[in-house]
Amino acid sequence: MSPKSVLITGASRGLGFEFVKCILSQPSPPEILFATCRDPSSADALQALAKENDSLKILKMDVTKDSEIESAFEETQRTLEDKGLNLLINNAGIYDKSDSGSLETQTRERLQSHFETNVTAPVLTVKQFLPLLKRAAANNASLPMSYNRAAVVNVSSSMGSVQRTLEGSAYNGCHYRATKTALNMLTATMSSELKDCGILVAAIHPGWVKTDMGGQQAALDKSTSIENCWSVISSMKETSTGKMLSYDGSVMPW
Amino acid sequence: MSPKSVLITGASRGLGFEFVKCILSQPSPPEILFATCRDPSSADALQALAKENDSLKILKMDVTKDSEIESAFEETQRTLEDKGLNLLINNAGIYDKSDSGSLETQTRERLQSHFETNVTAPVLTVKQFLPLLKRAAANNASLPMSYNRAAVVNVSSSMGSVQRTLEGSAYNGCHYRATKTALNMLTATMSSELKDCGILVAAIHPGWVKTDMGGQQAALDKSTSIENCWSVISSMKETSTGKMLSYDGSVMPW
Repeated sequence: MSPKSVLITGASRGLGFEFVKCILSQPSPPEILFATCRDPSSADALQALAKENDSLKILKMDVTKDSEIESAFEETQRTLEDKGLNLLINNAGIYDKSDSGSLETQTRERLQSHFETNVTAPVLTVKQFLPLLKRAAANNASLPMSYNRAAVVNVSSSMGSVQRTLEGSAYNGCHYRATKTALNMLTATMSSELKDCGILVAAIHPGWVKTDMGGQQAALDKSTSIENCWSVISSMKETSTGKMLSYDGSVMPW
Repeated sequence: MSPKSVLITGASRGLGFEFVKCILSQPSPPEILFATCRDPSSADALQALAKENDSLKILKMDVTKDSEIESAFEETQRTLEDKGLNLLINNAGIYDKSDSGSLETQTRERLQSHFETNVTAPVLTVKQFLPLLKRAAANNASLPMSYNRAAVVNVSSSMGSVQRTLEGSAYNGCHYRATKTALNMLTATMSSELKDCGILVAAIHPGWVKTDMGGQQAALDKSTSIENCWSVISSMKETSTGKMLSYDGSVMPW
């Protein structure tokens, strides 16, 4: 059974939009699904889906702006009232692939903007939504750790695995890799910190997917990746907290 | 035998200053040791040491300013001419310990400033000094990979190890942990990228040391930590590149 409430960031396109479609198509979908994006007015596909699905609420949230994370939280809180939020998926992320992303192409601005969107933003999003996550965890205290109680899922990548990177002797996109590695650490620290409240925190590797970010030569189509991811997320339990799981369910090395 | 030339950042105090003392006290110290800091005019201990040691050159370099990294490079290049730089130690780092550093204490500004000094800055420093490191590697092409040929050592921490963090169920200082984890990834990508040029890139964990950063309850005194670190750095070879080594020589998990 799906969690009663879900919020996903970066939902207007790519994997975020695919998550929205996948979640809405479940046999027993959530009562409410908040889908955030930077500019709802231009999110045509998401708007079309919201017209057909009363449970889908679109929220404006540029994750690089504290004020927008706060406004989205306030609107979510007004809607959910005392029920709390069961599942937060930190999906919003950027990857500037305009060049190889080797050492010599790096700039202060590029590195800092990737850290801001891919690491700082998800941390501040969890911090902001924590009262709602805690509320859901407390309301469902009899349930084991799972997305039916309260969970945070951070969309990470095998590109953030230091071990995998070294095995592949890869250095492309190092600005992106470093952000996902940092996000993995924060998944670990948040999992430790929130375990006693009953909130599960895990990272997921969606595979190499045919999106604007992944490119058309990627191995997986979006629906295959996200259907698998959702299946993995639905199976997450106490032993999953603090881990990075692949879309195939395997545990990824750090 | 020590490398002929060394540059270390953040050298006015703490582990950086201890590295300077340790390196100068070697039986055959480097011909030239560049010690950088934000404000040489207030670096009294470093200035006193430079008066006694002609080989010690103090350079102004705030690692958060591209222009200062560039000026330091230009001065280094004028001094070294065609010899190149053998060893770059990225030591400068910050750790705001004003509170527990748990999730709820995090702010955008704190996270971003820690990423800037602890991750972005060392990457841009390596990028800037790369011509001098490549020159040293080419000049010493007959030598195996080592600090006598060309090497970058990034001062990291066991706090950046996701595995160690989870083993300890720790979440304190998560803003600092995430930066060291990201630095470890960039150590890995740089090691892959620079291996063919003959440049060794590794991270080092200095232990928990009695400094302003480590606090007085720490396990190690500065000289014990840094003498051990220098011994480990002096033994680094081709198989060390891309690894995080502890001050006791053991390989740290990611």
